[in-house]
Amino acid sequence: MGPGKGATATDLERAYELGQRIAQQGWVLLTGGRNAGVMDAASQGAKAAGGLTVGILPSSDTQNMSDAVDIAIATDMGSGRNNINVLSSDVVIACGIGAGTASEIALALKGGKPVVLLSDHHESQQFFTSLSPETVFVAATPVDAIDIVQAIVQENR
Amino acid sequence: MGPGKGATATDLERAYELGQRIAQQGWVLLTGGRNAGVMDAASQGAKAAGGLTVGILPSSDTQNMSDAVDIAIATDMGSGRNNINVLSSDVVIACGIGAGTASEIALALKGGKPVVLLSDHHESQQFFTSLSPETVFVAATPVDAIDIVQAIVQENR
Amino acid sequence: MGPGKGATATDLERAYELGQRIAQQGWVLLTGGRNAGVMDAASQGAKAAGGLTVGILPSSDTQNMSDAVDIAIATDMGSGRNNINVLSSDVVIACGIGAGTASEIALALKGGKPVVLLSDHHESQQFFTSLSPETVFVAATPVDAIDIVQAIVQENR
Amino acid sequence: MGPGKGATATDLERAYELGQRIAQQGWVLLTGGRNAGVMDAASQGAKAAGGLTVGILPSSDTQNMSDAVDIAIATDMGSGRNNINVLSSDVVIACGIGAGTASEIALALKGGKPVVLLSDHHESQQFFTSLSPETVFVAATPVDAIDIVQAIVQENR
Repeated sequence: MGPGKGATATDLERAYELGQRIAQQGWVLLTGGRNAGVMDAASQGAKAAGGLTVGILPSSDTQNMSDAVDIAIATDMGSGRNNINVLSSDVVIACGIGAGTASEIALALKGGKPVVLLSDHHESQQFFTSLSPETVFVAATPVDAIDIVQAIVQENR
Repeated sequence: MGPGKGATATDLERAYELGQRIAQQGWVLLTGGRNAGVMDAASQGAKAAGGLTVGILPSSDTQNMSDAVDIAIATDMGSGRNNINVLSSDVVIACGIGAGTASEIALALKGGKPVVLLSDHHESQQFFTSLSPETVFVAATPVDAIDIVQAIVQENR
Repeated sequence: MGPGKGATATDLERAYELGQRIAQQGWVLLTGGRNAGVMDAASQGAKAAGGLTVGILPSSDTQNMSDAVDIAIATDMGSGRNNINVLSSDVVIACGIGAGTASEIALALKGGKPVVLLSDHHESQQFFTSLSPETVFVAATPVDAIDIVQAIVQENR
Repeated sequence: MGPGKGATATDLERAYELGQRIAQQGWVLLTGGRNAGVMDAASQGAKAAGGLTVGILPSSDTQNMSDAVDIAIATDMGSGRNNINVLSSDVVIACGIGAGTASEIALALKGGKPVVLLSDHHESQQFFTSLSPETVFVAATPVDAIDIVQAIVQENR
């Protein structure tokens, strides 16, 4: 998960690498599906590494979908689809921050899903760690994020 | 799409065959994802033929999911997820009838999606054909349904 | 519940009278909230009789809302809001027919809500009565519909 | 908006007073509708002052509803209903903090709604102010929150 148009150059670079590494792990990548920002970069990275990508779209059709999405779910629910994004994920990686991404992190914590924060935004680390210290993890790099997810997945097995 | 616990033996047999034939076409099968009735039978058929299956679940987790679902989408929306089922489909095949299936057929027509009815339930054929004569098709067998879908897909290309 | 742009003159007349009579009973009128068809006519009727009206809108704002709606609920869910319409109602009166209205009737039956059909559309009466003979009622006039709802409400008390 | 079971004694006291003052302004109070925490306290306060209360419930029925809710909207969407809560509000007052409340604040900002924070939780003030400095306001007391809302409402007129 991560910002659409508000994504920084660093967010996009990290998202592409995350997508690649998620695919290399044999994991399915699930994003918000649009052809913008972190969603698109992560999906492109995953496809470049031969992965499978799912996009949970805010719209009723696939008009603004990333062309790197394999399985398109059209919700016609706008930001209401954010709860579906997180409930359908085993672990949420938040790459960058913005209002939409913040809602996904919060909904993930509400739904009992572990969240890995990959962002240099200090206030978001402080806030979400204060909300749920046991299920929020802070990563410094994509490699770091993948290591944290692996540890979570192994523990939950 | 089709009934869960209300499915007849004929519905289940047809759903399994539909799943197989959908997979053989190289199409992705999307169902309501539960381990019951037409959803489960179609997913089992598709997996037996090596297909890819998506399940849009009414629940917040995968506890009552068909074990033949590959990609699980947890909506926590109950029957509210029926609109997502149809908006995410290119064509809807309704195998059997019940209140939930009727809502999916109606939402599909509202959303401009073609619907193929595969059921011996006379009243549903009459009703939905009267609602939308140009986008409702009646099939007598799974083979027939697949033929109709092929014609629709080719026309929309 | 009833069609927006597809409403007939008879549907609109009946909807207005239904709104009036619902308000006269002291009941709250809940509709799909838009400034079109049966939703608008029923809301206007209810306001003319001093009633309270709720509109569950498909949109994210109130731009296309009926000006006779008191309490606006903005869902941004398109037809996905139809399930909320019926779950929030004690009894559903379907005035006229169309794909959206058919989805509401079917979702109401799925959700265990009684439905009163007020429409001369023979196929819909036959279909929905065949689906759920015990919770579907056919009314000939608005007065008739109100009488049926009163009987249902008294029985459920 | 505010926590259910995680609400503090201060949150509940403030929520009750907020409900009273909202009703005294002649405004409609909209909450998440459950019989717990801030939702319940605010609704009780509003009813004590003769106000009108709307509850957007996460459930499909009214079993766990606050008895101070006048208009019940049953969504059957769990936390997915949080987006409806904020889209249906003119201004969001967040009284206390928790994961669910954080998701509502974030969704409100995403949806362009002004948010008033009434909480001593320092990290949430810092975070949300950093996300959207122009639409997040910090209040020290219920009276302060109402003053801020009045200013917003007058400006938007």
